[in-house]
Amino acid sequence: MGQALRVALAGLGTVGAGVVKLLDVNREIVERRAGRRIEIVAVSARDRSRDRGIDLSRFAWCDDAAELASRDDVDVVVELIGGADGPALTLARRTIAAGRHFVTANKAMIAHHGIGLAGDAETAGVALKYEAAVAGGIPVIKGLREGAAANAIGRVYGILNGTCNYILTTMEAEGRDFAEVLGEAQRLGYAEADPSFDIDGVDAAHKLSILASLAFGTRIDFDAAAVTGIRHVIAADIAQAQALGYRVRLVGLAEASPEGSSTAGLFQRVHACLVPHAHPLAHVAGSLNAVVAEGNFVGRLLFQGRGAGEGPTASAVVADLIDIARGEYGPAFAMPVASLAAMAPAHSGDRRGRAYLRFSVADRPGVLAEIAAAMRDAGVSIESLIQRGATPEGGVLVAMVTHEGPERAVTDALARLEGSSSLLGTPMMMHILDV
Amino acid sequence: MGQALRVALAGLGTVGAGVVKLLDVNREIVERRAGRRIEIVAVSARDRSRDRGIDLSRFAWCDDAAELASRDDVDVVVELIGGADGPALTLARRTIAAGRHFVTANKAMIAHHGIGLAGDAETAGVALKYEAAVAGGIPVIKGLREGAAANAIGRVYGILNGTCNYILTTMEAEGRDFAEVLGEAQRLGYAEADPSFDIDGVDAAHKLSILASLAFGTRIDFDAAAVTGIRHVIAADIAQAQALGYRVRLVGLAEASPEGSSTAGLFQRVHACLVPHAHPLAHVAGSLNAVVAEGNFVGRLLFQGRGAGEGPTASAVVADLIDIARGEYGPAFAMPVASLAAMAPAHSGDRRGRAYLRFSVADRPGVLAEIAAAMRDAGVSIESLIQRGATPEGGVLVAMVTHEGPERAVTDALARLEGSSSLLGTPMMMHILDV
Repeated sequence: MGQALRVALAGLGTVGAGVVKLLDVNREIVERRAGRRIEIVAVSARDRSRDRGIDLSRFAWCDDAAELASRDDVDVVVELIGGADGPALTLARRTIAAGRHFVTANKAMIAHHGIGLAGDAETAGVALKYEAAVAGGIPVIKGLREGAAANAIGRVYGILNGTCNYILTTMEAEGRDFAEVLGEAQRLGYAEADPSFDIDGVDAAHKLSILASLAFGTRIDFDAAAVTGIRHVIAADIAQAQALGYRVRLVGLAEASPEGSSTAGLFQRVHACLVPHAHPLAHVAGSLNAVVAEGNFVGRLLFQGRGAGEGPTASAVVADLIDIARGEYGPAFAMPVASLAAMAPAHSGDRRGRAYLRFSVADRPGVLAEIAAAMRDAGVSIESLIQRGATPEGGVLVAMVTHEGPERAVTDALARLEGSSSLLGTPMMMHILDV
Repeated sequence: MGQALRVALAGLGTVGAGVVKLLDVNREIVERRAGRRIEIVAVSARDRSRDRGIDLSRFAWCDDAAELASRDDVDVVVELIGGADGPALTLARRTIAAGRHFVTANKAMIAHHGIGLAGDAETAGVALKYEAAVAGGIPVIKGLREGAAANAIGRVYGILNGTCNYILTTMEAEGRDFAEVLGEAQRLGYAEADPSFDIDGVDAAHKLSILASLAFGTRIDFDAAAVTGIRHVIAADIAQAQALGYRVRLVGLAEASPEGSSTAGLFQRVHACLVPHAHPLAHVAGSLNAVVAEGNFVGRLLFQGRGAGEGPTASAVVADLIDIARGEYGPAFAMPVASLAAMAPAHSGDRRGRAYLRFSVADRPGVLAEIAAAMRDAGVSIESLIQRGATPEGGVLVAMVTHEGPERAVTDALARLEGSSSLLGTPMMMHILDV
C-alpha cells in the first residue's frame, strides 16, 4: 500500500459534503480499489460555521480557497465552488501551476476554459479530471475518452439536464403545463429559484460542448452550440407528440458532418426534440440523464443514470481521485491539446431531418390554407397534420409533422409566416430524433 | 508522439479480422487518442490461406500462436483464439511470463483462470486486459473497475447473452415457441450450430462471474453461480408475463448479502426472469446487451449496447490497446490480487422475492386444489393465478405469480408436488426482478 493521496476540498455545498461522506462511508473499499488511502487534509468554504452534518474539525481550514493550491501537504485539489470564472478558475490555474492534480465538477468552467487548463496540466505533468461535470454519476467522460476511444464517433447526444427531464416527464405524466410544473419543481427543490441555466438549455450546452470535444477530437466550442430550452413546450405539444408515437425530451446533440460533405464541420444543438418510443431516450424518465454515442465500430452505446445530486456527483469526483491514486490518467481531452482539431461550426440548414411544428392560429377561414401554402412554397412536405383544441392564446392549435427534408426549408416556411395576422403566437418547432 | 505500440494477434476469426480492419479504418483517430501508433506486427491463426478480406502479407506469420509470446518486436499479445484452456491459456501464461502485455476477449479463460493470470501480470508488471470478454463493445469492465469504483455495489446484473435475448424477444414479438425461433436463429447465423453455451446460460455465467469480481472485490467464483438457461421457456410463459406487465429476459445477477445478514456471502445466478415493463432491462431488445450496477452513492447505472460481433468486440479490444499505449492500466481486477476477498457463496433460499410458476396439469377435478395446497403448506402466498389454454404436453396451463417471500418456500412447494400424477411436465419457475 503506497502513501495516502492527500486531498484538499474547495466548496462544501451538497457535493462537497457528499465527497466527505463517501470517503468516510466507503473508506475501506475505496482504499482497496485505489491501492492507497484517499484522505482529505484541508477544506475551504464560505461559511465555516454552517452545519453540514459532517465533522470538519479533522481537516485544516482555509478561508481563501486559493490557499489550497500551494499547501505542501496536498496532492490534489477538488474544486466544487462553481462558476465559469472567478475563484474557481483562479484555484484551477494556481493548483496546476503549483504542480498539483486538479479535479472539478464545474461544467461551466470546463466548457469555457477546459482546453486552456488541459494545456497547463500537460505542461505541469498533472491530471485535470472532470467526470462529475457531465451527467453526474454516469461515467460518460470515461466512456468517450477511453471506452469508445477506438471509434470514429458520428453523433453524441443525450438527456443532459435532469431538471428539464423532470419537468417534461411530469408534464407528460400529468398533462399539466410548463409554468405550473416548474413552480412545483421549485417548491420541491428540484429546480433552482433562478432556473434559467437549466430550462433555457445553457447547462446542457456546457455539457454537450465537453462531450463533443471528446467525441470528435476537437477544441471545445461552446459558443457554436445552438441553444433553446423548454419554456415554450406546452401540454398540447406533449399530447400531440404522444398521439404520434413520440415523447418530448430536451436533447443535446453534436454531430460531425459526414466525410465528403460540402460543409465539413461540427454541429451542436440543444433543443426540445420528439423522441420515438422505440428509442432508448424515450424511456429516460424523471431526473435521470442518459448519453448515447454512435461509433463506426461499436454501434450505439447508451450510458444512463443519475445526473446530479450529492451521491452521484460525489461518486464521479471520487472515481477521478481513484484514477489519480492509481496513476491511471493522461490528457484531459483524450489527446494532447496540440492534437485537438478546431472544427468549423456546421449550419443546421445543411442538415436533413423531420420536424414537428405547432401553430396557434385565429379561428377563421383561410388560415390553414395560408400555412399550407407557406409550407409548399418553402418545399416542406407535410406527413401528418392535426387541428384540435384551444391554445393559451385563445386560438386554435394546428400541429404537424413534416417528411424528411432540409432543415433550412422549415426555417424558410416559418419566415414566410412571420408577421401573419393569422398567427396568435410564435410557432413552436421541434426536431424529431431518428430511431 | 512516442514509439509505436507493437501488437501480435492470435486468432483471425470474425473478431481478429475486425481488429485488423479497425486499426486500418480508424488509424488516424486511434493514433491521436493513443498518443502513438498502434501497429500489428505479427499474426497467428489456424489457416493461413483463408480469405478474410484483409491483407495479411504485411504482418509476420506464426503457425504456432505461442511463438508470439516471445517475439522481440512485440509489446502486446491479443488473444482471440477462445477456449478456457489449451492454446489460449498457454499463450496467456507465456506472454505474461515474457514481460509483455496481454489483451483477450476470452470470457471462459478469464472466468476460470483470470485471477491466476492477474497475479502473474502483477508480478511481471504488465497489463492484463479483457474489456471485450464481457458485453462486447460496452465498456462495462471499465465502468465497474473505474467508473463506479467509489461505490459499494449492492447488485450487478444484466442481459449478458445476445443470442438468448434475440430468441426471447423474437418469441415475444412473434408469439412463437423456443425451438422454432432457435432453429431460425441458427439458419440466420445468430445462434451457433451447438448453441448450448448460449442457451443454457454458461456464456452469461462466465461474464457474470467476472462482473461480480469487479463489483464486490472478490476472487472470481464461476462454479458458485446457479445457472439455468432458456430452453424451458414456452410461448405461453411470455404471453402470461406480458399480460401481467412483465417481459421475459435471461438475467445474470450477482448480489452481496446485506451487511449483518446471518449468511454473508455472494449470490450469483443466471436465470430467465420476469422483468417489469418499468425496468430499463425490459426495453433491451434483439441481440443487445445491458448491464446495471447499483452503487450506494451513484444509484443505478445502466450500460447498454452491442454485446457481440466483429465491430463491437474489436472496439473493446482496441480500447484496451489504447489504455496500454497511454500507460493507463493497473490491477486487472481493480485491486491487487492479494486484496481480493474470497466470499462464500450465498444460498438462494435465504433470498426473498416474487416468482412466476407455470404448471402443465391434467384436465381433471382436484388438480388446482392439490397445487394450491402445496403452496399453502410451503407458506407461499399467491398474488395472481390464471388457468388457460393447452400446453405442449396436452394438459392445461396454470400460471401464477407469488407474493414476496423466501425463495426456499417456492422450492419447497415444488418439492411437495414432485412426482404428482397431476403434473404432466416439469413445472417452470422464473424469478421476478424488482423494479
